[in-house]
Amino acid sequence: MNFTRKSELIREKNKSNLVIGLDTDIKKIPLYFLSFKNPALEFNKAVIECTKDICAGYKLNIAFYEYLEESGIKAMRESLKEIPNELLKICDAKRGDLDNTAEKYAETYFDKYNFDSVTISPYMGSDCIKPFIKRKNKHVFVLALTSNNSYADFEMLKSGERFLYEHVTEKILAAGSEDNIGFVFGANHLHEIKDFTEKYPGVSLLIPGIGAQGNDPGILIENIKTENFVINSSREIIYAAGNEDNLNQIMEKIRNEAIKLNKIISLNKN
Amino acid sequence: MNFTRKSELIREKNKSNLVIGLDTDIKKIPLYFLSFKNPALEFNKAVIECTKDICAGYKLNIAFYEYLEESGIKAMRESLKEIPNELLKICDAKRGDLDNTAEKYAETYFDKYNFDSVTISPYMGSDCIKPFIKRKNKHVFVLALTSNNSYADFEMLKSGERFLYEHVTEKILAAGSEDNIGFVFGANHLHEIKDFTEKYPGVSLLIPGIGAQGNDPGILIENIKTENFVINSSREIIYAAGNEDNLNQIMEKIRNEAIKLNKIISLNKN
Repeated sequence: MNFTRKSELIREKNKSNLVIGLDTDIKKIPLYFLSFKNPALEFNKAVIECTKDICAGYKLNIAFYEYLEESGIKAMRESLKEIPNELLKICDAKRGDLDNTAEKYAETYFDKYNFDSVTISPYMGSDCIKPFIKRKNKHVFVLALTSNNSYADFEMLKSGERFLYEHVTEKILAAGSEDNIGFVFGANHLHEIKDFTEKYPGVSLLIPGIGAQGNDPGILIENIKTENFVINSSREIIYAAGNEDNLNQIMEKIRNEAIKLNKIISLNKN
Repeated sequence: MNFTRKSELIREKNKSNLVIGLDTDIKKIPLYFLSFKNPALEFNKAVIECTKDICAGYKLNIAFYEYLEESGIKAMRESLKEIPNELLKICDAKRGDLDNTAEKYAETYFDKYNFDSVTISPYMGSDCIKPFIKRKNKHVFVLALTSNNSYADFEMLKSGERFLYEHVTEKILAAGSEDNIGFVFGANHLHEIKDFTEKYPGVSLLIPGIGAQGNDPGILIENIKTENFVINSSREIIYAAGNEDNLNQIMEKIRNEAIKLNKIISLNKN
């Protein structure tokens, strides 16, 4: 089953357009988890356990696992096994490299870890995505218009009649299809999200930038003109328990935060 | 000591502008190494041992280490310890992410592994480099004009009077200095390398794309108008021994290939 179809089914089943970002920073997780051999893994297991029936999937930010060296690799691999197969498993790696290196990344994230989709930085052009999308039922989310402060440095440079990010969406889509290519738009770019989703309603969007990054999810949702989207929230949800030291309480607080966000952003309300 | 000065000293001492790319693929290394517990690490140790007095440094392509999971992390960390401190240690990661994630990558590659420089993909703008260059004596090589087939998809889009890669070099340089920012230019872009090095002789270049990628190093060297450059060669050197099964012979063949390339590309000839 291709990513777009899988995404559609789980959004309906769990009544959620929410992807939870497992940006697991062991300096920020509740102290409760630090007594375990692999704190990041135990924390992720708790987050997944208390949210897996009310979200569309998870996005693992590789930076936080690389930082933990061997125990990070283990935390990533074992956390993925805790995620039910029908949920979306998105690897936030922002890779972008030439043929033999991109192939190696695809072997790692798709063939070994079984992620469904990987985020890609498009600077080097369409070569960057080919090894990823040649794999059956696999998918990439390519950076289009990002949520960070310096997005306009290059993404908004105008070439001819269009901005760089528009050249990116057009050229990259031409190298694949709606089934295996989606784009990342930051939640701050309301006007551009509205335009893009009106023009390409069949293309999936991954939208970060709400919560800790400060954009209003209610206003965002009014500007998305497709059902093919997931909104990512990381810090706001996974650290919702602060330094609570009771596991049940931790899980309840995280779950409640996810439910609260679902009520705002999800098309099929609980 | 900043990267540019460190680079200058080692190029003079070892009479070499060569960086050897440790793109260590265990499917391609001599079978001899497969009997060891960590083949990638043993292979890297052999390559480093036979070339460390005749090169300017090493570039480790993270894709190949991520692929090996825990043993790859170990191979990377232990290989770095084998590289003498006066040599350049370049992390080929092509990372590019927003503030808290870029900071995590910087902590990993600079604070934990002690690389001198990391390659960065600039799509998201100058935010991507800030956590890296705020560290004393650390450095980034930002992608400008790459050697792969689809480089022209976006890097050569024209905005105003200039191409995207020229906007990148100008904007990124403005966020740092010659001491902590260099650029990646593929060896196929002779004219652009000549122009850039004439304009910015103090900015370091990292030049991949000779050898397995097919560009002539002799012609390349005539077009570089600065001493601040390193040329990377990976597959042509590290796999020079084919499937040779005697360690001394393997090391001799690798060393000879590095010497051969040094004679062509290095300014201070052996």
